Amino acid sequence: MKKTPVRGTNDFLPEEARLRDYLQNKILETYISGGYERIMTPAIEDAENLDKSDGGDNLNLVFNIMKRGDKLEKAMKSGAKLYDMGLRYDLTLPLSRYYANNREKLLMPAKCIQIGSVYRAERPQKGRLREFTQCDIDVIGSSSYTTEVELIYLTAKALLSLDIGGFTVRINDRRILRSMLMNIGFDEDSLDSVCVSFDKLDKLGADGVRDELIEKGFPGEAIEKFARLTANPITLDDAALTADPDAAENVRKIIAASEELAEGKYKIEFDISLVRGQGYYTGTVFEIISEKFSGAIAGGGRYDNLIGKFTGEKVSAVGFSIGFERIFAILNGAGYKIPNAKRHIALLYNPDEIADAVRQAERLRGGYDVTLYEKPKKLSRYLDRLKEKEYYGFCFTDGDIKELR
Amino acid sequence: MKKTPVRGTNDFLPEEARLRDYLQNKILETYISGGYERIMTPAIEDAENLDKSDGGDNLNLVFNIMKRGDKLEKAMKSGAKLYDMGLRYDLTLPLSRYYANNREKLLMPAKCIQIGSVYRAERPQKGRLREFTQCDIDVIGSSSYTTEVELIYLTAKALLSLDIGGFTVRINDRRILRSMLMNIGFDEDSLDSVCVSFDKLDKLGADGVRDELIEKGFPGEAIEKFARLTANPITLDDAALTADPDAAENVRKIIAASEELAEGKYKIEFDISLVRGQGYYTGTVFEIISEKFSGAIAGGGRYDNLIGKFTGEKVSAVGFSIGFERIFAILNGAGYKIPNAKRHIALLYNPDEIADAVRQAERLRGGYDVTLYEKPKKLSRYLDRLKEKEYYGFCFTDGDIKELR
Repeated sequence: MKKTPVRGTNDFLPEEARLRDYLQNKILETYISGGYERIMTPAIEDAENLDKSDGGDNLNLVFNIMKRGDKLEKAMKSGAKLYDMGLRYDLTLPLSRYYANNREKLLMPAKCIQIGSVYRAERPQKGRLREFTQCDIDVIGSSSYTTEVELIYLTAKALLSLDIGGFTVRINDRRILRSMLMNIGFDEDSLDSVCVSFDKLDKLGADGVRDELIEKGFPGEAIEKFARLTANPITLDDAALTADPDAAENVRKIIAASEELAEGKYKIEFDISLVRGQGYYTGTVFEIISEKFSGAIAGGGRYDNLIGKFTGEKVSAVGFSIGFERIFAILNGAGYKIPNAKRHIALLYNPDEIADAVRQAERLRGGYDVTLYEKPKKLSRYLDRLKEKEYYGFCFTDGDIKELR
Repeated sequence: MKKTPVRGTNDFLPEEARLRDYLQNKILETYISGGYERIMTPAIEDAENLDKSDGGDNLNLVFNIMKRGDKLEKAMKSGAKLYDMGLRYDLTLPLSRYYANNREKLLMPAKCIQIGSVYRAERPQKGRLREFTQCDIDVIGSSSYTTEVELIYLTAKALLSLDIGGFTVRINDRRILRSMLMNIGFDEDSLDSVCVSFDKLDKLGADGVRDELIEKGFPGEAIEKFARLTANPITLDDAALTADPDAAENVRKIIAASEELAEGKYKIEFDISLVRGQGYYTGTVFEIISEKFSGAIAGGGRYDNLIGKFTGEKVSAVGFSIGFERIFAILNGAGYKIPNAKRHIALLYNPDEIADAVRQAERLRGGYDVTLYEKPKKLSRYLDRLKEKEYYGFCFTDGDIKELR
């Protein structure tokens, strides 16, 4: 039998699991005190729901769950699909379904927290997991820009509580980029493809993006205009003049309030090249970049059409998702110590003293986490192991604690 | 698109999610202060590991995850299995794999907590879910009876902290039942089948069990002896005389210490008919029965052969699993209120006050969970909805809290 966890998944040792719980609880605490409420949805979703969810590239990464029994046999014979469910690839689709299923019971706008595992059949590589945790907050039923302000504020507050160092919030609105591209001569149909190239501005530089657009065969005039525009950073003022002024004004208000609330603890930036991968985003998109570590540690945006697929009527929604695994990797890699952790001691007993040992341990459990071990034959070697595992001390059934140093 | 969660799974509303988190944290707290350490394993396991895991009936209930890409195409052509992974059906198999994978890093005996989702393709019916949470503690590397004493004590302590009313711990050792059955003339090969029938003693009564054994075609003489034996309750003294005296003595010691530690808060009973469904149990088995509600709310036992399948050498292990969904269903159904829950208020703001509103909310967040809402047009109707949702009060941007009554 295979000892290692399946590719792209992890076993977490006690010290790692402790850090994960600590970080999740800190995030949860921030969001709950912010008046958001946790909800829970299954990790399994209907296959058709996943298929139709505008998940972009993630749809190619769904783990499919096979039909069973008669259903499987029938499908085998008829050549129909062999699967009827799949593992969720994010928490946004389940949230949208949840809202549709429960909307009569919810106070609107609904302010939801979700913390849970999601699954993607990524080609395993450093930092890409196939099972990973996301921490999301979402607001359903508000189209006001103040909702973005609040989501950004609370997510930044959660990150500040975790000691991960400086970070920058980047904000854009897809409508700005799209209208700018249409104004300079790109077809509506080609916008997604142009955006994909433009998203690589950081990586490829302006020339690289131009070369890619030429390769893709877009009209030369549009590409030249585009190259001239992107030769210098595009400010929100440029965007307001050359693109969608309403969307630009909306982003301006989000940035103004967010900067006021940041009080200099983190940066807020407009970034017209920001697209984010999910197919379902319709307006504002935003992400948080850690200054110490490359790549985004949180991402989100407005998805005003996804819930309508379930309810038949348009419902505004916007969410922000913390990439929990990245935060965990940063802090775990840096040997982060949980502040004010309870001390851990061992109580060593002889087998015939078990009832006394349990009672003595209970007396000590107000102040310490107390693990019971049968007294080992090689005591001093065992005490060395306890010290390695960062036990504070040990005692026998008499309860007299000796510190390990 | 389908609004309801897939069959046998649940969406949990905010008040339900809050109760689930509360209950899990209470259980986790008890186990951590008891010196156990949480570990985490993936929900996905290798298909072969699951197949070979002695999971009894649960092996027929595994959700299989399809191969992908080239692997799937190859399998389609060659007629090989179309799946390479599956969702775990319990937390014991992943724990055994985890131990094999990480044993050099663990302090022995390893005392582990696991809380996580497991999956079984049960035919959906009341109380049977396809995705459900288990809370397990396990000790790996100790064959001492004192380990069972500790597991039973801590699990009972966790349940006592949850206000679920009276309960009874039932204990048996599979070796007692098996040797008794062999002594009176049943074949070793037939024991599993006889045990399955005997497990129904509660449901069918002694006569019903006899009828079922006759139907199954076992030797008449053995069945008659068996019927005479089971006509009256079988005590531990009977078991010691007629069956495996060492196993009986072991159970006697577990019961004596457990009764001493129970201090009358719950009952401890020997029950020779107790079998528990998992195929991998090798010795002691135990379960906890709620006095108010039918069925077991926790179950466990010793599984001394499962880890050896990974490591090649026998490693003693024993675990106890709380059926979390049952506890949740009991308390949620009874309208349980979380003690000392933080009060929840709403702060109602005008859009152009968003930064002030957030700052005012922060001032109030020491004492309350504060949700921000844009001031609604129909204020008094909105306040009624807040009251329904058990908000304690509300305020405007000035922070002056008005109680809702």
